[in-house]
Amino acid sequence: MKAIRGKIANRALGPGDRLPSIRAFAKTMQVSPSTVVEAYDRLAADGDIRAKRGSGFYVSTTALPPLTLAEDLPRTERAVDPFWVSRQSLDADPTTVKPGCGWLPADWMPHEDLRRALRNVARGEGPVLSDYGSTRGSIALRRLLMGRFADEGIEVFSEQLMLAGSGTQAVDLVCRFFLRPGDTVLVDDPCYFNFRALLRAHQVKVVSVPYTRSGPDIPSFEATLAAERPRLYLTNSALHNPTGATLSANTAHRLLNEAAAHDLIIVEDDIFADFEPEPSVRLAALDGLNRVIRIGSFSKTLSASARCGYIAARPDWIADLVDLQVATSFGGPSPVAAQLISGVLASGSYRKHMEGLRRRLAGARQKTVDTLRPLGIEPWLMPRGGFYLWCRLPDGYDSADVARTSLAKGVVLAPGNVFSASQTATSFMRFNVAHCDDPIVAEILQQSLQRCAPSSL
Amino acid sequence: MKAIRGKIANRALGPGDRLPSIRAFAKTMQVSPSTVVEAYDRLAADGDIRAKRGSGFYVSTTALPPLTLAEDLPRTERAVDPFWVSRQSLDADPTTVKPGCGWLPADWMPHEDLRRALRNVARGEGPVLSDYGSTRGSIALRRLLMGRFADEGIEVFSEQLMLAGSGTQAVDLVCRFFLRPGDTVLVDDPCYFNFRALLRAHQVKVVSVPYTRSGPDIPSFEATLAAERPRLYLTNSALHNPTGATLSANTAHRLLNEAAAHDLIIVEDDIFADFEPEPSVRLAALDGLNRVIRIGSFSKTLSASARCGYIAARPDWIADLVDLQVATSFGGPSPVAAQLISGVLASGSYRKHMEGLRRRLAGARQKTVDTLRPLGIEPWLMPRGGFYLWCRLPDGYDSADVARTSLAKGVVLAPGNVFSASQTATSFMRFNVAHCDDPIVAEILQQSLQRCAPSSL
Repeated sequence: MKAIRGKIANRALGPGDRLPSIRAFAKTMQVSPSTVVEAYDRLAADGDIRAKRGSGFYVSTTALPPLTLAEDLPRTERAVDPFWVSRQSLDADPTTVKPGCGWLPADWMPHEDLRRALRNVARGEGPVLSDYGSTRGSIALRRLLMGRFADEGIEVFSEQLMLAGSGTQAVDLVCRFFLRPGDTVLVDDPCYFNFRALLRAHQVKVVSVPYTRSGPDIPSFEATLAAERPRLYLTNSALHNPTGATLSANTAHRLLNEAAAHDLIIVEDDIFADFEPEPSVRLAALDGLNRVIRIGSFSKTLSASARCGYIAARPDWIADLVDLQVATSFGGPSPVAAQLISGVLASGSYRKHMEGLRRRLAGARQKTVDTLRPLGIEPWLMPRGGFYLWCRLPDGYDSADVARTSLAKGVVLAPGNVFSASQTATSFMRFNVAHCDDPIVAEILQQSLQRCAPSSL
Repeated sequence: MKAIRGKIANRALGPGDRLPSIRAFAKTMQVSPSTVVEAYDRLAADGDIRAKRGSGFYVSTTALPPLTLAEDLPRTERAVDPFWVSRQSLDADPTTVKPGCGWLPADWMPHEDLRRALRNVARGEGPVLSDYGSTRGSIALRRLLMGRFADEGIEVFSEQLMLAGSGTQAVDLVCRFFLRPGDTVLVDDPCYFNFRALLRAHQVKVVSVPYTRSGPDIPSFEATLAAERPRLYLTNSALHNPTGATLSANTAHRLLNEAAAHDLIIVEDDIFADFEPEPSVRLAALDGLNRVIRIGSFSKTLSASARCGYIAARPDWIADLVDLQVATSFGGPSPVAAQLISGVLASGSYRKHMEGLRRRLAGARQKTVDTLRPLGIEPWLMPRGGFYLWCRLPDGYDSADVARTSLAKGVVLAPGNVFSASQTATSFMRFNVAHCDDPIVAEILQQSLQRCAPSSL
């Protein structure tokens, strides 16, 4: 490779020139022809030369354009809409601090368990590496999920369960199945911002009900069902995003009765469930997967890179959702991804990993409260688990202003209104306690608060 | 694990009973406490016992339901619609022979290259294993793709390229972006059956033009554009699915002029391009990614399990498509999958692998023709490459009948009308030559032809 690169550099070989034949060059270099083939193929992969089918190798006429992280950096002038936090945090410069993001720092994740599971996949059956998955996805992972459902007291038959490309893709698939443009969908206020981005893509009308410390406000829920007749309700039950609140048994029961009275379908996104210190009431369990559709994934606890989610619901819905998934993504979710996840789960290491995370998060939660309080930023409630703190800024501050100001200094925050369909969370902000350890967070927050002080003060 | 299972089997431990404490059982078994923890965690993963958070381990009260491949088997009574082939082949019993399927046999795939690349991922950076990808996907893979585009003579800037969850998901994303229910979309007749399934999910009107040996029939294409004003045209240029035909330069040029005159957007799905003996003309190259959107993946050549596709198009469209992908699947496609694919590509082994596949397929193509001819089944044309043969059955036969009859005997075929929007391919059938080697194929085909002989004979 070095010899050829040298010839190109000193112009012994110009753009478009044919490279020496494999045999001739092997003789020149006193190596085997297969070594030359490998060198040529690697040079071609690097873009220095190109292989023409059935003809040979030629020096590239156009250099491969450089491509660096810098080109992917998000535009900072974007509107603070439901995409804002995701785009700013997914594509952030690695030096950016991200108290606004929705995942744990990489070094909190069980890399050794993932490496071991991935090595097992590499050693395992060939078809898992190369073939399309079955339409419902890996049997091993579905069986493990059924065991987890049984632990929750939900009996899930195999025809009630399918894997999907991710938790988000699972929600999206359900929305595609039930919704038509112009339909109405109910969300919590505040709710996970990407529910809003997703529903916008579905061109539906979004209505919202205030979320209280024990779940959606039931009188408001009832009135909205009667007035708006929403087709779907999207929610998180355990450790609600962004508030960290927990649905109470009584609210869950009343909510389900209202849903039945108005023929509402409920999508319960359970993605934060494993962060609870002990399981709370779940709509899917009360309802027995009748009108509740359970969705989840291991993106927050094991790997967001593997991309694997699931849907548990009525068998007739699952059958149609499987067809829809075949039409829109062909085959089930990645067998490699499913085997990576099921490998970690089956090894038994997941429970210890989650125990460790819960312990660590409890400490981080308290520490973040202690950091924010001197700035006048107060948690709306102290969550039982998870990594979010939904906080109120001092009176009069606009959290979007604070977020924009902080972004310019390399700190991504999550301003309240990206979570609020009614745009009533101007003074709120969601903090990810696992990303608040860096002293820069308090420092930049303080500067931004000073800069954004309400003009009336 | 054996000791606890024994206690459960002989009822020393009953459903719901608490297991011995870690410490006590470690002493009994004369092993370390950590060994007991691991055994308990594995038993819990297997569903024999369960862990209650903060409380201990208990014998499961409900056994994990068995879950076997048999439960996933497709229903054979399904209608022969665009989903038929995919459901029958994706979920087929492993003993089923699948001349109707759209992929190569597992043992034709480069498992050693994939294993090596996967081991490298397992050894690599932790965040790749655990974190969300950037919204446009892996830089390494995008750079390799840009090199491949340069080889084709298409200059693609970084803001014109994004990765997607798969080739199908790429087509779906483009359709979501451009189409609204009731819009009109143009396809070839015949075309890839899943385009039909996908467009059905989008609730659009599908119109089609006959596909000739050199591309779509241009007079018919022109008339359809004028009369129906389709918004999009979905097609494969190189080695068209199912016919194996190649678009000619003249047809490509005329087609693009018609598209410009009627403001038609073209989605060129290039998934079979690497199977061509030498590259043919491409719409994306002629058009310079103006109104043509290039889509592709490595599902047919490297791994359908890794799930990774791409979209190259105008920068303003890519920016919006990236937002839509964030809304509907959050984050870019799996970093693990992208690194697996880019690892194989960068190693340089891909070219040799593809050379081998092309050689092997050329032999299989001729052999399949020789097998089918005595049955009166004739190829419509002899493709330059790829694994499909689009064949005509003897006069009067209905290929759907033949496919249904063969399915009952464990052979999945691909009857013509699943590919035909106009339902005019009753007497055609697509054969995957890489799956026609088993003598059972000719045997069952012959029996089915006898059984389905036209009544007029």
